[in-house]
Amino acid sequence: MQTDQLRALLADVAAGRRTPEQALASLRGQPFEELGFATVDLHRGLRTGFPEVIYGQGKTPEQALAIAERLVAAGGPLLVTRVSPEMGAALAARFPDGVHDPHARCFHWQREEPADVGRGVIRVISAGTSDLPVAEEAALTARLMGHRVERVHDVGVAGLHRLLHHRQALETASVLVVVAGMEGALPSVVGGLVACPVIAVPTSAGYGASFEGLAALLGMLSSCAPGVVVVNIDNGFGAGYAAARMNRRTP
Amino acid sequence: MQTDQLRALLADVAAGRRTPEQALASLRGQPFEELGFATVDLHRGLRTGFPEVIYGQGKTPEQALAIAERLVAAGGPLLVTRVSPEMGAALAARFPDGVHDPHARCFHWQREEPADVGRGVIRVISAGTSDLPVAEEAALTARLMGHRVERVHDVGVAGLHRLLHHRQALETASVLVVVAGMEGALPSVVGGLVACPVIAVPTSAGYGASFEGLAALLGMLSSCAPGVVVVNIDNGFGAGYAAARMNRRTP
Amino acid sequence: MQTDQLRALLADVAAGRRTPEQALASLRGQPFEELGFATVDLHRGLRTGFPEVIYGQGKTPEQALAIAERLVAAGGPLLVTRVSPEMGAALAARFPDGVHDPHARCFHWQREEPADVGRGVIRVISAGTSDLPVAEEAALTARLMGHRVERVHDVGVAGLHRLLHHRQALETASVLVVVAGMEGALPSVVGGLVACPVIAVPTSAGYGASFEGLAALLGMLSSCAPGVVVVNIDNGFGAGYAAARMNRRTP
Amino acid sequence: MQTDQLRALLADVAAGRRTPEQALASLRGQPFEELGFATVDLHRGLRTGFPEVIYGQGKTPEQALAIAERLVAAGGPLLVTRVSPEMGAALAARFPDGVHDPHARCFHWQREEPADVGRGVIRVISAGTSDLPVAEEAALTARLMGHRVERVHDVGVAGLHRLLHHRQALETASVLVVVAGMEGALPSVVGGLVACPVIAVPTSAGYGASFEGLAALLGMLSSCAPGVVVVNIDNGFGAGYAAARMNRRTP
Amino acid sequence: MQTDQLRALLADVAAGRRTPEQALASLRGQPFEELGFATVDLHRGLRTGFPEVIYGQGKTPEQALAIAERLVAAGGPLLVTRVSPEMGAALAARFPDGVHDPHARCFHWQREEPADVGRGVIRVISAGTSDLPVAEEAALTARLMGHRVERVHDVGVAGLHRLLHHRQALETASVLVVVAGMEGALPSVVGGLVACPVIAVPTSAGYGASFEGLAALLGMLSSCAPGVVVVNIDNGFGAGYAAARMNRRTP
Amino acid sequence: MQTDQLRALLADVAAGRRTPEQALASLRGQPFEELGFATVDLHRGLRTGFPEVIYGQGKTPEQALAIAERLVAAGGPLLVTRVSPEMGAALAARFPDGVHDPHARCFHWQREEPADVGRGVIRVISAGTSDLPVAEEAALTARLMGHRVERVHDVGVAGLHRLLHHRQALETASVLVVVAGMEGALPSVVGGLVACPVIAVPTSAGYGASFEGLAALLGMLSSCAPGVVVVNIDNGFGAGYAAARMNRRTP
Amino acid sequence: MQTDQLRALLADVAAGRRTPEQALASLRGQPFEELGFATVDLHRGLRTGFPEVIYGQGKTPEQALAIAERLVAAGGPLLVTRVSPEMGAALAARFPDGVHDPHARCFHWQREEPADVGRGVIRVISAGTSDLPVAEEAALTARLMGHRVERVHDVGVAGLHRLLHHRQALETASVLVVVAGMEGALPSVVGGLVACPVIAVPTSAGYGASFEGLAALLGMLSSCAPGVVVVNIDNGFGAGYAAARMNRRTP
Amino acid sequence: MQTDQLRALLADVAAGRRTPEQALASLRGQPFEELGFATVDLHRGLRTGFPEVIYGQGKTPEQALAIAERLVAAGGPLLVTRVSPEMGAALAARFPDGVHDPHARCFHWQREEPADVGRGVIRVISAGTSDLPVAEEAALTARLMGHRVERVHDVGVAGLHRLLHHRQALETASVLVVVAGMEGALPSVVGGLVACPVIAVPTSAGYGASFEGLAALLGMLSSCAPGVVVVNIDNGFGAGYAAARMNRRTP
Repeated sequence: MQTDQLRALLADVAAGRRTPEQALASLRGQPFEELGFATVDLHRGLRTGFPEVIYGQGKTPEQALAIAERLVAAGGPLLVTRVSPEMGAALAARFPDGVHDPHARCFHWQREEPADVGRGVIRVISAGTSDLPVAEEAALTARLMGHRVERVHDVGVAGLHRLLHHRQALETASVLVVVAGMEGALPSVVGGLVACPVIAVPTSAGYGASFEGLAALLGMLSSCAPGVVVVNIDNGFGAGYAAARMNRRTP
Repeated sequence: MQTDQLRALLADVAAGRRTPEQALASLRGQPFEELGFATVDLHRGLRTGFPEVIYGQGKTPEQALAIAERLVAAGGPLLVTRVSPEMGAALAARFPDGVHDPHARCFHWQREEPADVGRGVIRVISAGTSDLPVAEEAALTARLMGHRVERVHDVGVAGLHRLLHHRQALETASVLVVVAGMEGALPSVVGGLVACPVIAVPTSAGYGASFEGLAALLGMLSSCAPGVVVVNIDNGFGAGYAAARMNRRTP
Repeated sequence: MQTDQLRALLADVAAGRRTPEQALASLRGQPFEELGFATVDLHRGLRTGFPEVIYGQGKTPEQALAIAERLVAAGGPLLVTRVSPEMGAALAARFPDGVHDPHARCFHWQREEPADVGRGVIRVISAGTSDLPVAEEAALTARLMGHRVERVHDVGVAGLHRLLHHRQALETASVLVVVAGMEGALPSVVGGLVACPVIAVPTSAGYGASFEGLAALLGMLSSCAPGVVVVNIDNGFGAGYAAARMNRRTP
Repeated sequence: MQTDQLRALLADVAAGRRTPEQALASLRGQPFEELGFATVDLHRGLRTGFPEVIYGQGKTPEQALAIAERLVAAGGPLLVTRVSPEMGAALAARFPDGVHDPHARCFHWQREEPADVGRGVIRVISAGTSDLPVAEEAALTARLMGHRVERVHDVGVAGLHRLLHHRQALETASVLVVVAGMEGALPSVVGGLVACPVIAVPTSAGYGASFEGLAALLGMLSSCAPGVVVVNIDNGFGAGYAAARMNRRTP
Repeated sequence: MQTDQLRALLADVAAGRRTPEQALASLRGQPFEELGFATVDLHRGLRTGFPEVIYGQGKTPEQALAIAERLVAAGGPLLVTRVSPEMGAALAARFPDGVHDPHARCFHWQREEPADVGRGVIRVISAGTSDLPVAEEAALTARLMGHRVERVHDVGVAGLHRLLHHRQALETASVLVVVAGMEGALPSVVGGLVACPVIAVPTSAGYGASFEGLAALLGMLSSCAPGVVVVNIDNGFGAGYAAARMNRRTP
Repeated sequence: MQTDQLRALLADVAAGRRTPEQALASLRGQPFEELGFATVDLHRGLRTGFPEVIYGQGKTPEQALAIAERLVAAGGPLLVTRVSPEMGAALAARFPDGVHDPHARCFHWQREEPADVGRGVIRVISAGTSDLPVAEEAALTARLMGHRVERVHDVGVAGLHRLLHHRQALETASVLVVVAGMEGALPSVVGGLVACPVIAVPTSAGYGASFEGLAALLGMLSSCAPGVVVVNIDNGFGAGYAAARMNRRTP
Repeated sequence: MQTDQLRALLADVAAGRRTPEQALASLRGQPFEELGFATVDLHRGLRTGFPEVIYGQGKTPEQALAIAERLVAAGGPLLVTRVSPEMGAALAARFPDGVHDPHARCFHWQREEPADVGRGVIRVISAGTSDLPVAEEAALTARLMGHRVERVHDVGVAGLHRLLHHRQALETASVLVVVAGMEGALPSVVGGLVACPVIAVPTSAGYGASFEGLAALLGMLSSCAPGVVVVNIDNGFGAGYAAARMNRRTP
Repeated sequence: MQTDQLRALLADVAAGRRTPEQALASLRGQPFEELGFATVDLHRGLRTGFPEVIYGQGKTPEQALAIAERLVAAGGPLLVTRVSPEMGAALAARFPDGVHDPHARCFHWQREEPADVGRGVIRVISAGTSDLPVAEEAALTARLMGHRVERVHDVGVAGLHRLLHHRQALETASVLVVVAGMEGALPSVVGGLVACPVIAVPTSAGYGASFEGLAALLGMLSSCAPGVVVVNIDNGFGAGYAAARMNRRTP
């Protein structure tokens, strides 16, 4: 119940059009919060154009398909992450205009190329070849949300000249997503070279004492470069989503 | 070696004022990279107005004082974090115009109020009273860097109405810093209500199975609200610094 | 040795049919405690009507079948949890009146609908779709034990209005079982809204830094909402069993 | 704002004693959401008699005193947990009628003995002498909330006969709080003897591989006795609070 | 109820001084289990000569003193472990015949030298000087329990010849207690040289990645020498107690 | 260099067939230690009758077969643990007189029933059905080494009367091996009832917060019953081997 | 851009064949840093003869084949580690002169036997048969890099005489690589016997509380033998590579 | 038994002063191994010049003093690490020619400047000011052992130009010791720039998710730069000792 509605209700009471008890019942019976939140949700959708995203892992192809159909019917865009080969095949059969990217384990569909809603370009940097699927998930997510994305691959810190070769690209980015496994040192090095937000994504690449991404995660959280922020292990989607929030033109 | 210097060198060669071998020696003898990086650093400083910050922990008051004097001589602003009472007293004696905030464990000094360089307001939200020092460190950091900061305190999820009362404040922020200990659930709830970037800061508040902030850290990394990014435990400075990067007007 | 047997023994002594030393020997040789405890067990069964439950994991279908037959012969009800497809098929073939619920990984059979032994309704709340099997295991367990159970699904904290929409249901429950993976924040939010016991069940849903349910477990144990109690990861059966104990009409 | 106050306000509007705009101002001045939730909170307070509790750790004596005065002014009862000696002295000086229990690290005050609101007796069982402060915190909490509490101390599983001696006490409890450090085996043994809810509280008593309570916590979560629920390490308050919820007469 | 009392009761029945029903009532009213277990406990005490031991940590000097007086009144022997300097002084003041060993953090008293109840000699081997307090606690415990104990100190594996010099001593021991911190390799080497039981005691000596004894604990549990058994970190008392059990002459 | 060779060398010196310097060179060049240690090893084998054991895991059937043939040729007995079905089949084909116990994952062969070398009976106690394979491995190991072994199964602490029913068996054992998963409480309860050595074996049975046996391991190490010693998770062989060492008649 | 190219450019400017602005553009357009670092890389390659190595895990056979072809075209040598059977077959089909060592999970090829570039012999010591693949990977790596390598296998600390038999081999090595799983005690024993560098390699051999190599890793890091250095779990390649660095003749 | 004694014994046999059997008995009765190992130890000392080192932590000043006096009496050099202020004062009072370095927490004394026994210069690189004490301990250790040591401080990866400025120093080192806390990324970057051995030392500098050096330790173990070896957290002594082993001129 908005302020205007409340004013009208009180005016009704003043005018005798409703008794105090009737007004009390109205106030009590309203799902105030629910209404409020649904409105907020709608406003947010209209304002940011952020699509709803289906997390494929732990869902059956049938479940993913059912949700996907509702989203496409609503106009899309559609993004499904962590898509198994089976789910990807099912989605491709149903939405032949969509794209199944098995490398990034994503399926996506959109009516038309999204308008550019960003302030600048988001650059996704990855350290090694095994970090590519996570990097690609981040890139796809931000792209679907209407942001320009560029990729810089295979620039791990053990061969520093490869990274430094791309220094201009780093410095002109609006937001940087830095994806690395093993010791996860790349965000620290990048964070010291640029002034834009740096989102670090640890990956589970590595073995032994990397403990499925724990070494990279702890390292990124402990980065000596100030201002580096971190998302969950292998969470390319979360990084791309956060990058899009940071790069949006408003406010 | 700046571009101008390089141009002059080449002109000397063209004019015969230096032989190619002499120029080669000059180029070889120069700390190119260092010069180059120092230049970048300077450019970045000029461009972003981000001050250098002293991390007080593990330093003696004398060490902190020595670095602080160089920074103040350079015009400031000065921010020292994790200031012990002794260090705070030493800094206050040397810089009587500065402010020692024992609650946030910070000392700061600036010649004049910094110009507002942000796109909007950064709001720092904290869950409980024991999270306040970390929240204040984040707020001070962003403020010194030239951003408007507002605080919303004591809105933990166990009393949801306190948080919802501030919903408009949440929705109009440019960047949100959300500080919480114990289970660290606040960023997930906030992340579902807003469209702006959300930086989650786990604190070591709590006991037993919160394991000095580990429960909050893991929870924030595993947040079901997409786009939440995380910094190290109790790292208010890092959160404020990252928020400032996200809120800067350029690009 | 039952009370009757003890009475008979003492009567023998009184009648001179046994000397005191002979009676002493008999008393010494008897597994007194076993008798005592077996009686207690029986009393408990009669008093609470709690059925014995078969934990299917780590058992062969043959082993489960053998125990199930003894329980059914005793009148049931029968509940088998963590049922593999093979075990479920074997049980269904033997007990065609039973129900194999592959979603909750349970098999159950009962002679007749159990009488309602509860004080009120147990509500099982779950945060996401991947938490459903655990939630269903909890619901089935409490139902078999003679309690009314209602379910509220997919009300994770990232979309708070969905949860608040069910506030009346939450407030009128006798006991709440709250199932959540990832950061496990739902019990904290629910715990602040209600006055009844809240049993939190962490699930292994999530990835990376959720560490197979550890993030949710630590978060629930560290909950800022007082009075939340926790069971093992994915332990829907334990939660349902505990909820039934809390909801029983006696004492 | 209570229902009665709202009704009076609306009656004023109907009677023309306030204009609609005046009423609107009053309502606006009120924290609506807060009011809504505060009402719920108050209802809950009236219904369950659960007092607000001050967690002393991390607060200064001044902070604790300020909150305590507001609670006492509201009629109490007052419970402060994790009270340092200094805080205890400050509270005792201000509230000479209150009780400072240094053993349980609690301070409590109440106008009069609370009415018994429980269905039965809550029994608090502890394994060893080092578990006593945590057990006492649980007992005090439930007692202040209006429940009958009895204590059974020093009945660890290594001397089983001590526990079995109290079997009748265990069997007649309405709720059991079982406090144990080291390996935390007591709740498993107790859970197999009774039919009522069992709340297990791990304590940090022990050394080496007990890892500050971790061994007991994991053991209790993995208990082979079904229906045991667990709270955080050393969280006697949480256990007492949960026990009170389970024992309340309604519904 | 002791055996004598039970015999008297049965004699009363035989003599007609009590009816069977009266005797039944008496038996019912008695804490049978307690009696039973207390008897067992007493039998065990008589049979094994194992004294009760006071764990000093977490107790006040007053508490320790009170228990100690009861034990001494019962004839002793008295062993108090983890004795603080204050507690040691209090015990020494009360029992001037006792011995306060601040190195082993123990206080012990006995009426007379205990008879040798062992099958052979227990040898306590330690790797470095920082392991000595734990080794001494083990030696003292076994000695008080009536076993011959010999010590071999400072024979860590990095100087293998020191250990091999004592090979004959190792080979002729009845039980070996091997105490080591850091990587805890000594029990593996010793275990391959002897045929008697080897009890490994990890200590918290070491730093960094030894994680307060965790490295030694995990190493000892993973020992490639078969038959090595392990006790808790720094648990010299437990090792001495277990060694005494293994070395007792019966059965 | 064997004793005979050493004697011959010295005889050569005495006879003038070698000069002292030549003998010195021979002695220097010889692997003295190896001779020494090999002798020790042989002595140990003769003295204790402990057979060499093949750990099957990580070996190919061919490797296991090759070692087994050498051991059988040496007269046996033969014990292979962690036998895969393939390895078991290969061993059974080669040694038709041997026994493949797939439940305990062992293969064993002996020329004749070993003579009883123990002081008493070793009893292997297990808590639940999923602990049986580990318990059986322990029993088989001790049996092969010439010890009498008896088994007590399914006596977990949640049904205490089952355990207490076997109290006499517990009290008359020479050594107890106690096998339990989940919270691993059984050794604590048993340890308080008996005077003989208790070897606790944690198993990986359990799920969630039992973390593959970690909960049971930590619990057993932290046991409140003094004198309990622990082996690695699922290490039935190590427990049986250690029990045999404790039970041997010598010294 | 190499030094020669830079010299030529400057000569062009001096000769008027390029204007200073043209030279400036060339210099700007060049990846200076890349040039700089690539030069370093090349120098290093020429100086040390260290081949580039392909880490096979996480790559498809096609990817490995493509990189391998470039390396062989450059003259080799070629080393691929963590080779799956499929990848090994693909490599063997393409490079029939190469060697696929399935035991070490490596494929290697070289035009001719590499010249010996080492100061002495590298000895690779392993504790048990399950450590052999890791040891072999280390040996192969160092061999391909031009170092003499000798192997000492199956000399675990539980049978010390086997190790001591090889003492001369240990003492004459230039560098020792010591590979061990389980408790990882071998490097501590070896480290106390020799004066050369000791590289410890923990392996994941073991079970239960060895936690996939964690016990060995922590033990090796905590070694009481000074000067032992450690690489990642199962990282034979890294150990062989480091050994080669230590053994190179220069400087 | 020393070589001289052995020679004398053999001469006795040759001269008929002892029979072979008498000599055999003497040889058997002698602690051969001890003699052997002590000799080896002495040889090693003579050959490598590595001094014995006192680890001060966990020792009393008196204990350290006693050992120090023996070492000085033997000619030195003397190195005591982890020296407390009290221990440092006691050592300085006793050895006024020695040096107490409170920053590195070391005390050292030597008769004269050690001769240079190294192949080249060892460079100790540290990332931040809080890593200095550990770096200094490493430098001092290697210096005392007779190696040239140079230091490069404060070159963390977040300001890459500082590190690159020292590239020539890195490339000309014989061995590099790289000390870093927080995320520990420096060794990865350095490892990619040089061809010499790189010893990584994680420090406990950092907070929160750096977990007392764990983040740096795991990161260094997982380094993407091949050939990096690692020592324990804060173990500057071990790194310096290992560097000295790698740099020694022999073989």
